[in-house]
This record gives sequence, structure tokens and C-alpha cells, in this order.
Amino acid sequence: MKDWLKSDLKYIWHPYTQAKEALRLPPVLIKRAKGIKLYDSKGNFYYDTISSWWCNVHGHNHPRIKEAIKKQVDILEHVLFAGFTHKPAIELADKLIALTKHKFNRVFFSDNGSTSVEVALKMSFQYWHNLGNKKKTKFVSLDYGYHGDTIGAMSVSGLDLFNQVFSPLLYPVYKVPSPYCYRCPMKKERSTCAIDCIKPLEKLLKEKHAEICAMIIEPLVMGAAGMIIYPKEYLKQVADLAKKYKIHLILDEVAVGFGRTGLMFAYEHVPKIKADFLCLSKGITSGYLPLAVTLTTQEIFWAFYGDYEKRKTFFHGHTYTANPVACSAGLASLKIFKEEKTMQKLSKLVPFFHRGLEKFRDLDLVGDVRHIGFIAAMELVKDKKTKKGFGLKRRMGLEVYRRALKENLVLRPLGDVIYLFLPLCTSKAQIKDILERTYAVIKSLS
Amino acid sequence: MKDWLKSDLKYIWHPYTQAKEALRLPPVLIKRAKGIKLYDSKGNFYYDTISSWWCNVHGHNHPRIKEAIKKQVDILEHVLFAGFTHKPAIELADKLIALTKHKFNRVFFSDNGSTSVEVALKMSFQYWHNLGNKKKTKFVSLDYGYHGDTIGAMSVSGLDLFNQVFSPLLYPVYKVPSPYCYRCPMKKERSTCAIDCIKPLEKLLKEKHAEICAMIIEPLVMGAAGMIIYPKEYLKQVADLAKKYKIHLILDEVAVGFGRTGLMFAYEHVPKIKADFLCLSKGITSGYLPLAVTLTTQEIFWAFYGDYEKRKTFFHGHTYTANPVACSAGLASLKIFKEEKTMQKLSKLVPFFHRGLEKFRDLDLVGDVRHIGFIAAMELVKDKKTKKGFGLKRRMGLEVYRRALKENLVLRPLGDVIYLFLPLCTSKAQIKDILERTYAVIKSLS
Repeated sequence: MKDWLKSDLKYIWHPYTQAKEALRLPPVLIKRAKGIKLYDSKGNFYYDTISSWWCNVHGHNHPRIKEAIKKQVDILEHVLFAGFTHKPAIELADKLIALTKHKFNRVFFSDNGSTSVEVALKMSFQYWHNLGNKKKTKFVSLDYGYHGDTIGAMSVSGLDLFNQVFSPLLYPVYKVPSPYCYRCPMKKERSTCAIDCIKPLEKLLKEKHAEICAMIIEPLVMGAAGMIIYPKEYLKQVADLAKKYKIHLILDEVAVGFGRTGLMFAYEHVPKIKADFLCLSKGITSGYLPLAVTLTTQEIFWAFYGDYEKRKTFFHGHTYTANPVACSAGLASLKIFKEEKTMQKLSKLVPFFHRGLEKFRDLDLVGDVRHIGFIAAMELVKDKKTKKGFGLKRRMGLEVYRRALKENLVLRPLGDVIYLFLPLCTSKAQIKDILERTYAVIKSLS
Repeated sequence: MKDWLKSDLKYIWHPYTQAKEALRLPPVLIKRAKGIKLYDSKGNFYYDTISSWWCNVHGHNHPRIKEAIKKQVDILEHVLFAGFTHKPAIELADKLIALTKHKFNRVFFSDNGSTSVEVALKMSFQYWHNLGNKKKTKFVSLDYGYHGDTIGAMSVSGLDLFNQVFSPLLYPVYKVPSPYCYRCPMKKERSTCAIDCIKPLEKLLKEKHAEICAMIIEPLVMGAAGMIIYPKEYLKQVADLAKKYKIHLILDEVAVGFGRTGLMFAYEHVPKIKADFLCLSKGITSGYLPLAVTLTTQEIFWAFYGDYEKRKTFFHGHTYTANPVACSAGLASLKIFKEEKTMQKLSKLVPFFHRGLEKFRDLDLVGDVRHIGFIAAMELVKDKKTKKGFGLKRRMGLEVYRRALKENLVLRPLGDVIYLFLPLCTSKAQIKDILERTYAVIKSLS
């Protein structure tokens, strides 16, 4: 038998992976998966506690999604999406628009979160250009935001470990402080603050709105920054300011879309919110196949309408745009939401999950516990009083990850933040088991 | 029955599509496909003469690829690719490396051509940074090159219709003239020239190599620019200069990879060529599912090796990186190359195809006919002597497209260039039929 792992270490370059650490802790060779469990080649199982990078929704190997994929592949696996169209894409677009209650009503397809964000940024930029406003060329984003790894998406992301190397390639963006309550940029306490952290944005928009196209933000949860969960009042004020100063609002729900926060979309936590773009990927196919969409409004769409030589067309596309097989997986996933009453079940389990997280607060290592829906984060600190973290060298997160693997958990850290990002099909018994194992792992390091 | 097309026009934003034109010529609703034929909802067929945007290789609805997809979806549809790995990705990486005869020996997965290019650019940039050379921050590319639609990929592409709107977002890149023989930048004739168009590149590298990371180029065929096919001697000299001036060479074979030019990879037309990156997508899954890879060398890989806190890690990734189902489709496609002797069959058909193209030269409208492998382009001109094109307003390409549809062809133009980009499984009889129909369409406009 071929030694697959040897071949992996020799030939594959894994994403976000330091080879020096991978040599000591080689990747786990996964053979199969079912429900929320991954099984390696030796028969060990791992709870997919981070939903395979925040994408798995209904569990692995779901019969309905498999069936949909197999059925579609027998009919039409792919066709170019310019000048041609097909039912799976149209049906998925229809259903997504209905899901947003027609808040958005145009769908542009692409392949991943980064491209869905690039599409939104480029559409916003060109919208103003097409309207004859050439002054609006800038974007605003949060200083700890994360929107993808392509140059355009990196530019609006936080200038941290991930991308400061690449600064000479990034376009300039206005960054405002993040609503990071545990480490409040205004040195306030949430229980008594008046969302004071909105002020820098307010000041910026007041002064610079004439040159700003759009603000991009991850609604309620800043994922890669360490699952920073922020008050919905902040999001509401962002939306109000965007409206007031006539800039577009781009909601990046690549991570939080499709139920993660307890509602289908995180923006629904703010009733009547108005936005111009919605970026979705990850959960859109329940984590089965690559697919992304950028939803927008008819108002944006019609600004690109005109005679060809006027150059108003949006010249953007990817070969596999609206791949019919991926669209069919997406349709199956939406059906399962209905048939399995996913959101109703979730709403019953969320309080149980959140209650179970309370006891983590007693652990010496745990500085902050935050949660929303099926997302929870524990921020590890060296000192609870000063909130000092462990720093890059200590690799505390990696230590947790290593121990967690032995406890059948995937606790892939974000710096010093340990988090759970559960598939929506996780049962009460599984939640209980996962929380107990997670607790044991963190406690063992205290 | 639901009116799917109505819904499409109402809710979908198609790539590279001007809605005003789409209202007059709505997209064709494709129901199924088989071999090189697409079938619409009314039962009409269309030869997939551009391989569904240059991606279909072995034809639609191929039993072996379908089988592979179905089998994989029953085992493991997806798992995150950091800390975890799986056989389909490892096997595909092994086979791709073997196909390049170990010219490349590290594989980084992503989802589409744009991301495979962004990965190569970022790796090259960070390579120099990791080695302590902070001066190398620039790239070189051809002035008509096309490498994708994300900001990083657009920056190294030609500043044309597609992306000049977005200039404020693009990073500065050194552009050199393209080896466009029909409209030679040096005003020479190919039969007597000494590849003089290499000179501007030579001059640039001599002066600026110290600040240049890499040059990116589409080997032999500049696809989106209008299937500009250039002499292999030019590519050889580019590679020699890159070596001489110690800059990386990035080969973007997203379009031409997997047999299109008559060899598995276009760079094979230049024996012993040395390069540092190879970008592949489109044909990698035979056009069934989204997948891309960036191949590189161990030398590049090891420059990212080190203690975590040294920040040498390549922090880039996409959720669906190395999706097992897409990798399985890729493996099936490579098997078919062997089983169906695709390349051997192709080598017999290519001369027949090229001979059939000769008569297009007689048409008044056709200024240039160029071809390589299963790719052919006819550049339409108003005046053969002056080589003057039709310009944006006339939309001559669109007129050809419209008429071609009625002749069961997909002749989606690139400006005034009409091209064929045939699936590798196209038979002799089909080539004959396609050429006759194409001839009739162009002739009807003369």
C-alpha cells in the first residue's frame, strides 16, 4: 500500500500551514465522514467541531445532498454562464432572494468567499463610476476584519500576521476600530457603554464620505479575527451611517450565513437593516462543493445597463460560475433546512449550548467566553487581570489543538482563541460531549 | 410550468454580460449536455465549440468522470485541508507532478484561475521577503495578458476594456509589449524578424531586475486578448531572461493546460524550459467542477519553512481547497487521457483541423487566421490592408455570435476575434461540420 501521508508531506503545500510544525504534527489522513464525524485511516473519529472551516451545515454524507449531486451530474455537469443559463442556478437564485425576503434581488455567482467579496467591491466601485462619480474610489473596513486572501479582499482586511508582508500590493483603505468588547478600543465596558466605538467611523464618514464607495463588514461575528462577537447595535449604527452618508454597505456573511448565528443570516438580528451587497459562500452548499454568490439590488444592477460602447458592463467572471452540480447541492441544502426544521431545532439547542459554555469562565486560562448561535469562542490569556495573551512564540493555541485531537476534537485555534463552530445538525448529546471534552483539554493546560 | 428564463432575466447577473444586449438576445436555457453538444429546453443542440469557456476536455456527461464523482461523494465530500488531508488530493498532486516530469514538485490547491494566479504572485513576492530581500516588490507582465478578475490578477493583466475602470485599486506593474505577430509592436514580419519584441523586456530586466519578483505569462496563447498565438522562441527567450536576471517565471496555463495546444502543457513546446510556478485550472477536472492548483518547486517551498514566530508561513487558503469530489473528477480526467489515448488521437486530428482553417483566409472579413493544437482564431477586420478593426460600437463579434447560434455553434467572440477552442474529444466528422458551419456564418457577413 502506498504511504499516502509520506507523499502528502513531500508534495503538498497546505494552506495556512507552517511546514516545520506539520513535520512534527503531520496532517490527519481522513478516509470518510458521516454526520459531524470525520474518520481517519486508522479508524479514529474526530468531531468536526469547526464545520470543516465553517462550511458544513447538515453534516457529512447527507443522503439528500448526495442524491442531488448524483442526479445533476447525470444531466448537466457544467456549461458556461454567459449567453447560457440553467435551471439549478435560476432556482437557487430565486430561493436565495426569497430567503432574504427580497432585500436583495440580483445574484452574481462565483466560486469562493474571496471572489464573492471582490465582486461586491468591484461592483460598488464601478457603480459610482458608471454614475459619473469618479471621486468615490475608497473603501472602509474594520481594522480586525477578514474578507479573504486575494489582493482585493486582503486590502479591506486587517493588516495583521496574515497580510502585512504584502502591503506594497494592497490598495489604501480607511480602517476603523473594531467593536471588540473584550478589548474595547474606547476602554469602556459593554454594560455601560453607548456603542462609543462607532464614533471614529462617524467622524470618518462625515469628513470623507464623498470619496468613499462602500463599507464592508462581517455582521455580528468577526470570524478570522478570533470569533469576535459584537453588539447588534453596532451593526445597526453602521447601517444607519452608511445610509446617512450615501455609501454602500457590503455584508460579508461568507462565514456567518446559513444559520450559524441562530438566524438564517446574521443581519436579521437587526430588523429592517438596509444593505447593498450580501456575500455568501461556505455554507451555501452545506460544505460539499465550492460555490459563492454576491447578492445585490436592482438599483445597483441597472447602473450597469447601457450601450456596449459606453463601457458600463461588469467585466468579471470565473469559468465555473454557477456550476450546476454545486447549485444543486445548494438547493438540496435549502430543502433540508425546511424538511429537517434545522432552524427550529437549532433555536431549542442554542440556549443549552450557551449554558454549557458558562463554566469555561472559571478556567484560569480563559479570559473571555463569547457566543452566538452555534458559534462560541474562548480567548486564552496568560493573565486574566491584564488580559495579556501568550504571543506568537508560545503557540498556546497549537498546544490546545494538539491535545484536542487526542480527545477527538478539531480545535483549530485563531491565535490564542479556541472556538467551536458547530454543524447545525449537532445533537444535544453531541454538544454535551464536545463541551466536556473541550473543557478537559483547556483545563489540562491550566 | 415555471418560466425559468423570465426568472433568469429578472434575478441573475451574468458574468461579462451587458443586460441591454441580453434583453434582446436572452441566454439559452440549457437542459442537458452530452459529448461536445449542449441541448436547450426546446431540444436544439449547440456544439460546445469553446469548451464551455475553455474548460471541457473529454466532453460532457462522460461516464467515467460521473462515476468518479458519485463514488467520492459517497465516501468523503469535503474536509478542511489544514491539519487534514485525503487520498484524492494526494493522488492528484502526485499525478500532476509526474505529468510535469518533476519540473514542479509542490502543489497548492485553490478554486479557480484567478486564485491560482494570486497564489503564485503572493508566493513569489513572499519568497523574496522571506529571504530578506525587501526590494523585490514588482511584477512584469505582457500588456495584453489576461490572468483573472480579482484585483491581484487584474493588476498583472492588460489595462483594457476589462479593467481600466479599476485602475485606482490596482498595484503598479511593469508591462512590456506583447508578441502579437499580426499587429507586431516592432512593425516587423515574423518570417524575417529575430523576435525583436523581446528587446523591451530585456531592457527592463537589465535596468530593474533588482526590484522585480517575477514575470507572469500565458505560454504560447494569450487567451482573452483574442487567442494571440506567439512563437515559442519568444517564450524561450523570456525563460532565459528570467533565469539570467534571477526573477521567477510564472506560467499561467489556466487556459492552455491539459492538451489544448497539442501537448499536455503549452510550455512543453519549449524543451528544457525552467519555471518557478505553473497555474492550472479550467481543464483540470475536464470542466466538471471548480478546482485549481498552483504548482511550484521545493526551492520556493523551503523558503517558507521556519519557526512560527518568524512569520515565514504562507497565510493563504480557501475553504474548499482541494475539495475531494473535484479532485476525484480531476483524477478521472487524467485516467481518461491514458485510456482514450486522447493526446495521440489529437495529434492525428490537429493537422486536419489546421488544414481546414486555411480557406478562412480568403474571406474578406478575416484579417488573420492563427492556430495551435485545438485552438484557432479568426481576427475580423474592416479592411485587410490597414488591418483596421470594427470597434466597440459595431459589435461585429456579437453579430457573428448571434448568427452562429442559429447554426448550432457557440462562437462567443473576444472583441473582433472569433475563435474555436474545441473539446479534445471532438471527432474528425465534427471538426469538419463545425468548420463548415463557422465558414458559412462568417461568409454570410462578408
